[in-house]
Amino acid sequence: MKALAESRVAIIGLGLMGGSLAGALRGKCRAVIGVARRDETLAEARAHRLIDEGTTNLAGGVSNADIVILATPVRTIIELIRTIGPLLPAGALLLDLGSTKTDIVKAMDELPAHVHPLGGHPMCGKELSGITAADPRLYQGKTFILTPLPRTPADALALGKALVAAIGAQPLVLEPARHDYLVGTLSHLPYLLACALVRTADATTSADPAAWEIVATGFRDTSRVAASDVTMMTDILLTNRDEIMGALTTYRDQLDFLMELVRDGDEGRLQTVLNEIRATRKEMFP
Amino acid sequence: MKALAESRVAIIGLGLMGGSLAGALRGKCRAVIGVARRDETLAEARAHRLIDEGTTNLAGGVSNADIVILATPVRTIIELIRTIGPLLPAGALLLDLGSTKTDIVKAMDELPAHVHPLGGHPMCGKELSGITAADPRLYQGKTFILTPLPRTPADALALGKALVAAIGAQPLVLEPARHDYLVGTLSHLPYLLACALVRTADATTSADPAAWEIVATGFRDTSRVAASDVTMMTDILLTNRDEIMGALTTYRDQLDFLMELVRDGDEGRLQTVLNEIRATRKEMFP
Repeated sequence: MKALAESRVAIIGLGLMGGSLAGALRGKCRAVIGVARRDETLAEARAHRLIDEGTTNLAGGVSNADIVILATPVRTIIELIRTIGPLLPAGALLLDLGSTKTDIVKAMDELPAHVHPLGGHPMCGKELSGITAADPRLYQGKTFILTPLPRTPADALALGKALVAAIGAQPLVLEPARHDYLVGTLSHLPYLLACALVRTADATTSADPAAWEIVATGFRDTSRVAASDVTMMTDILLTNRDEIMGALTTYRDQLDFLMELVRDGDEGRLQTVLNEIRATRKEMFP
Repeated sequence: MKALAESRVAIIGLGLMGGSLAGALRGKCRAVIGVARRDETLAEARAHRLIDEGTTNLAGGVSNADIVILATPVRTIIELIRTIGPLLPAGALLLDLGSTKTDIVKAMDELPAHVHPLGGHPMCGKELSGITAADPRLYQGKTFILTPLPRTPADALALGKALVAAIGAQPLVLEPARHDYLVGTLSHLPYLLACALVRTADATTSADPAAWEIVATGFRDTSRVAASDVTMMTDILLTNRDEIMGALTTYRDQLDFLMELVRDGDEGRLQTVLNEIRATRKEMFP
């Protein structure tokens, strides 16, 4: 395989993640080719100097690429994997940026033998979406998970790691199932909790005009991810359902436990549990 | 009543809130007198130029104060209100910074007639606590709720508002019950949700060393308030139990509703609901 510096990299989907990745890779490979559905997106990407070339034609965009990166919502990634195989040059590395991995890697395993697939999931993002929110520094210092398949050649994984290092991120190799279990609790669960909190406030306090003068930073932080991109989140929820349902079930038990503590009003017990939680949170983020 | 600039202000409790308030008021009144249990706290407050005078003697500290501010956890505030009356000069304004108001205002109503009570709750804070975290700018631009009693004279409320304005905050007058209902959902509920999230991660994913390399900003933000001061939070939970139980019950219903949506996997319905939530969140914080 060619080294990253010699590679032509096609990025399909120029939203927040794809646009940021394009900008981060530009100058570190032979060319960054942006593939988008709309000309306006390509114009925006060019205006911000995120891409070297741009096209709305998928087949043309990937036809002489050494690395192809799928940067769309998860279910679009899966559809693309099912159709893109014949369009890809022999020996191409096919990487994705999807937030769930089991279904994606399963689809990747059906790719024709001339393509080298590698699952990917960068642990970064923002509540803004689209090319206008793209930022080449988005990946800096962040963990970038890679989920190789049994069929992924060692040099394809090495090229994936080189790409991750080139954008300032740290590669972490994980099995797809282990990845989906962990993000079910550490990423998808917080999204649903934030959503339920927004609905609760909307159903009760938000009719009072004073509510929005007194809302504290605690509510703002705890509800922040409820503003995440809905297409992205719908795909995540639908492709990691079992792990998310498991995480929600455990969470509800924990919430019921805390509700009982509050109802009972046993000061000593309450303080012991809250101190344990505080210590755990401080251990998590020292 | 004397104007703020002519007033001696005694602050009882020099933690994050009291210490920050002392620093914010210093130079805007005749003197700031800090009252703390430990000499070390007073030394720290003096070193950071937060107070003009300091004492560990409650009676001495308040004996010639025009304004006395209770800046301790809620249940200590209630104890202080029950005992401090005879120590206060005639005409003194007694303000508190407690995060729940119904129980505090009820205790204030029993104060001797020569004292003018006024409930208060500044909508700010951080996860750090203690005098070392004090910051005179903590109140700037924040809402500071005032809950006057029927017995609170108009000029005592006016002096309270002047004090709030002097530290750069905006006064908002509310009835105690309405305050407690609103903060039950907007402040105390997010704390418990964050606690349940930390316990969930601790019970499931945190045994995997990869968990802490991939934990995303969503988890960090959603769990942030779980690191809040436990003594403060225990008092809040015990003095606003009914409103918090009500908020938790509504929240659990909302969570069950979202769980069903995820389990059913109806894409259209899921997207509609998540779009509504996103729009509500964006309306809350434009």
